[in-house]
Amino acid sequence: MQPNWIKQRAYLTPNRVAISFHDQQWTFNELYLQSVSLAYKLNTLHLTNGKRVAILAPSTPPLIELLYACMQAQCEMVLLNGRLAKQELAYQIADAEVDAILVADEELAKLPDDARIIPFSKLYRTTESEYDIAAQWDDDFALTIMYTSGTTGFPKGVCQTVVNHSSSAISSALNLGISEDDAWLCTVPIFHISGFSIVVRSLLYGMKIRLYEKFDAKKCSQEIINGTVTKMSVVAVILENLLSEMESIGQKAHPRFSTILAGGGPVPIDYLKRAAQLNLHVAQTYGMTETASQTATLANEDAFTHIGSAGKPLFFNEIKIAAKKDESIGEILIRGPHVTPRYIGQFKEKPTTIDGWLHTGDVGYLDEDGYLYVVDRRSDLIISGGENIYPAEIENVLLAHPKIKEAGVCGIAHDIWGQVPAAFIVVKESMTAQDVIEFCEQNLANYKVPKYVHFIASLPRSGSNKLLRRHLMKLLDE
Amino acid sequence: MQPNWIKQRAYLTPNRVAISFHDQQWTFNELYLQSVSLAYKLNTLHLTNGKRVAILAPSTPPLIELLYACMQAQCEMVLLNGRLAKQELAYQIADAEVDAILVADEELAKLPDDARIIPFSKLYRTTESEYDIAAQWDDDFALTIMYTSGTTGFPKGVCQTVVNHSSSAISSALNLGISEDDAWLCTVPIFHISGFSIVVRSLLYGMKIRLYEKFDAKKCSQEIINGTVTKMSVVAVILENLLSEMESIGQKAHPRFSTILAGGGPVPIDYLKRAAQLNLHVAQTYGMTETASQTATLANEDAFTHIGSAGKPLFFNEIKIAAKKDESIGEILIRGPHVTPRYIGQFKEKPTTIDGWLHTGDVGYLDEDGYLYVVDRRSDLIISGGENIYPAEIENVLLAHPKIKEAGVCGIAHDIWGQVPAAFIVVKESMTAQDVIEFCEQNLANYKVPKYVHFIASLPRSGSNKLLRRHLMKLLDE
Repeated sequence: MQPNWIKQRAYLTPNRVAISFHDQQWTFNELYLQSVSLAYKLNTLHLTNGKRVAILAPSTPPLIELLYACMQAQCEMVLLNGRLAKQELAYQIADAEVDAILVADEELAKLPDDARIIPFSKLYRTTESEYDIAAQWDDDFALTIMYTSGTTGFPKGVCQTVVNHSSSAISSALNLGISEDDAWLCTVPIFHISGFSIVVRSLLYGMKIRLYEKFDAKKCSQEIINGTVTKMSVVAVILENLLSEMESIGQKAHPRFSTILAGGGPVPIDYLKRAAQLNLHVAQTYGMTETASQTATLANEDAFTHIGSAGKPLFFNEIKIAAKKDESIGEILIRGPHVTPRYIGQFKEKPTTIDGWLHTGDVGYLDEDGYLYVVDRRSDLIISGGENIYPAEIENVLLAHPKIKEAGVCGIAHDIWGQVPAAFIVVKESMTAQDVIEFCEQNLANYKVPKYVHFIASLPRSGSNKLLRRHLMKLLDE
Repeated sequence: MQPNWIKQRAYLTPNRVAISFHDQQWTFNELYLQSVSLAYKLNTLHLTNGKRVAILAPSTPPLIELLYACMQAQCEMVLLNGRLAKQELAYQIADAEVDAILVADEELAKLPDDARIIPFSKLYRTTESEYDIAAQWDDDFALTIMYTSGTTGFPKGVCQTVVNHSSSAISSALNLGISEDDAWLCTVPIFHISGFSIVVRSLLYGMKIRLYEKFDAKKCSQEIINGTVTKMSVVAVILENLLSEMESIGQKAHPRFSTILAGGGPVPIDYLKRAAQLNLHVAQTYGMTETASQTATLANEDAFTHIGSAGKPLFFNEIKIAAKKDESIGEILIRGPHVTPRYIGQFKEKPTTIDGWLHTGDVGYLDEDGYLYVVDRRSDLIISGGENIYPAEIENVLLAHPKIKEAGVCGIAHDIWGQVPAAFIVVKESMTAQDVIEFCEQNLANYKVPKYVHFIASLPRSGSNKLLRRHLMKLLDE
C-alpha cells in the first residue's frame, strides 16, 4: 500500500507550484481541491473504485486535473492517443471494455459514435456526490493502461500499476538527482508514458511541470536559456529543433538547466556534439510502455565514451541478454518493479514476463563494462519522431484493401523523423500509390501512413514463407 | 525482490568514491571486491544465507567492509553498541541467539567470554571458499537487528528489513533531494540507525561517506566551511559543539553544504537561530530504530514558522495521533514501508504494529497544517499535581540562558505533588541555582519551574548522544 499520492503531496507541500501553463499556475493544493470536486462528480456518474475509463484530451491543465480526479476515484485510465484514426481508437475502446469515455469537447470529432462518451462539459455540469476518497492505494492497482503494438500488429493494452509508476519515478530520481527547485518542461504527449511519467514524478518529488500543449522551439529554447526549467524529455527530432533554434540565436543553456532526457530511439552522435557546444547535457534512455518509462539511461558524462549506448539500468532494474552460445548479441530481457504485470482485453491471458523477465523483442548487447547497446528494435519496429510504428499494423490495414494481394512494410531513413514507413505491394488489380495512401489515411494515424509506395511482383520471403522485412530495404536500393 | 545493492552499485558507478576516511578513500568497486573476498571467508566459517551474526567494531572502514560482506553473504547482522556494559551486551547476544560474534580486535575486552567470538584478525586469516553470491535480495530479509529499550525497560531486538532500509533512503531522497556531488559527513555511530542509514543511502544514491570514528568539532567544522561535505547527521549536543566552534573561528557554512539532519530529540530554538547566522540549514527529524531512521522531517524553510516541530511525514510515511475525544495531544502512531515488521528473541511474538500502525509510546500532536510536534517521549512524562509536565519544554527554556551549556530535566518523587521537576545543568559560566529558578519563573508556568537545581560536569547520554533522563535520577541518589 502507498499513501494516496495526490492527498499526500497536497498535505506535504500544498503551496508549491504543480503546473505552470502559459501565464497561469496551479499549486498542488489547488489541483487537489479541484480533483476532489471532479472525483465527487465521477462518483455521481458511478465512475469510482475500479471502473475503467478511456480518456482523450490534449496535454493541457484540464487533462491533468482529470488524471488527478480519476486517480483519486481509483478508476483505471485508458489513455487514448489523439493522433490515432477512428478505427484504431474504436479497437482500443472495445478491447478495454471501458465503462465510460471522457473526452475534451474539442476532440469529440476524433471518436466514433459511442453511447459511453462523456464530454468534459457534461462532466463539469454533473452534481457532486461526496464520498470517502481512498487514503491509500494498492501497489498492484492499474493506474493507467496504454496500448502498444507488438509483432502481431494487434495493439495490446498494457497495465501500469501504482508500484510500476512509483518505482520508475524513484529509480529516475536516484539516477538523475532531484532538487526542490526542479521544473520539468513537458512537451511530450501526456497519453504516452514519456508524458505521464512526468506527472508521476511531479507528484512524488513535489516538482513543478512547465506544460506545453505542443512543442514550440522558440519558447522552449527560451525556458532552457533562462533557466526557468531544469529538465526536459525529448525525442531526437525535437532535440534537433531545439539545437537549431539555440544555434540560430547563439545562446547556451542556463547553468540551472540540468538534463535533457532523450528517449524513443537513438540520438544521432552529431546532435550530441552540437548539444555539448550549447552546454546541454543529454541523457539517452531506453524504455517502453511495458516498463513505465526508463529502464536504462546513459549519464551525460559517459555520452562520448560510450557513443550509441543507452547506458546502464537504473538502480532497481536489471537487464540481461538472451544470446546464443558464444554470441554476445541477443534479445534484451528486463526485470524490475517497473515491469508491467499484465495486459488487458484479448491479451489478458498472455503473461508479460517469463521467469520474471520481460522479453522485449529488441536486440542488443552489453559491453564489457555493462553498458547497453540497442542494436535493433523488436521485429522491425519503425520509430518515427518518437512514435512507435509496427509494420504488421500497417500491413494488416493494407491487406484489407480489395485490390491488394500481399503487402510488406519497412522503415526507411529520414532526415527529420529518423524513420518513415514505406509500403511494398503486390496487387490483385491495378491501383495507384494515391489509392493506397488515401486508404491508409482513412484507417491509420497520420504518422503511420506510408510515405513511399512501391508495387512489386512478389515479396521476399523465407523458406517457411515468412515475410523478410529487412530484405524490403534492399529492394529499394535496387 | 531487489537487486543485491552492493553488486548493483559497483556495476553502476564502480569508480565513484564510497568512503573517505582520514586521507584514504575507497571506491564502490574496491569495497565490492573486498566484500566478496570477506564473504568467501564467511562462507568457510558457515556464516551465510540467514545465519545471524553480532558485530562489534568502531566506526571505521573495516566495519563498513564487514557490513558489506555480511549483506553479500545474507547474514542477519546484530549491531552491538560498544558503549554498553558487558552485562548489557551479554543480554543482547543471548537474546538474539547469534551464530557468531564478529569483533574488532581492539574491542575484544568489551565482550564477555563467549565461544562464538571471532576477532577480525581471525576472520581475515580464514581461507576463502567461493560460492554464488545472491544477485537479488528478498524485501523482507532482516539486514540488521538493533536493540532499543522501550517503555518496558527491556531492550527489544528490532528487525530492519531490506525494504525498511530502502524505503527510508528513498523517502529521505524525495524530501532532502540528492545530487551526484553529495557527500554525507558521518560521525554518528554506525551501530545506530542514524549511522547505518547513511551506509544505506550511500549504496542507493551512489554517494560518498566522509567517515569519522568520532565527532571532532574542529575538523568537522572545516569540512562544512570548505564545502567538502554536503550533508551531516547530528543530535542537539553535537550541533551545539559545531555552532560554538564555527562561531569561535567566525566562519560560515559553504554554499555547497546543504543540510544538517538533526535527530534524537528536539533541537533548542536558540541553536536554530545560531545555525541560521552561520548559513547552516537544520532539518529537524523524528525517527527511531523501529522506523529505520526518519519518519518526519522539518524543512529548513519551515524551521522558524513551525518552531519546535519535527515537520511532516516523508512521502511514503503516515502519522496519526491516538488522542482521547476532544483532545489533540495523544500517542504518535506511524505507518509506512519503513516500519519494522517484527522483533526477535524474547519479544518475537509481540506484534510491532496494531492494524498496521506502530504505537510509538511518544506523545505529540499535529497542528492544523499537519506539522508534527513531539511533546515528549512518554516514559519521561512528569505528572505533578495532576498537571502534565514535559521535560523538553523546561530544557528548551534553560538552554536559552546565555550561561547554560547543556540541561536535562527529570521528575522526582514528591510527597504532595506526586512528582516535581529537577534540573541538571552544565554551565558555560558560573551561576547560582537562584539565577536558574528566577529565569524559569520568567518563562514558565509556576508548576513547571524546577524545584531542585543541580550543577554537574556532564549529562548522562546514550551511545548516540541522546540525553538519558532516567539516569539523571540516579545521579541524584549519588
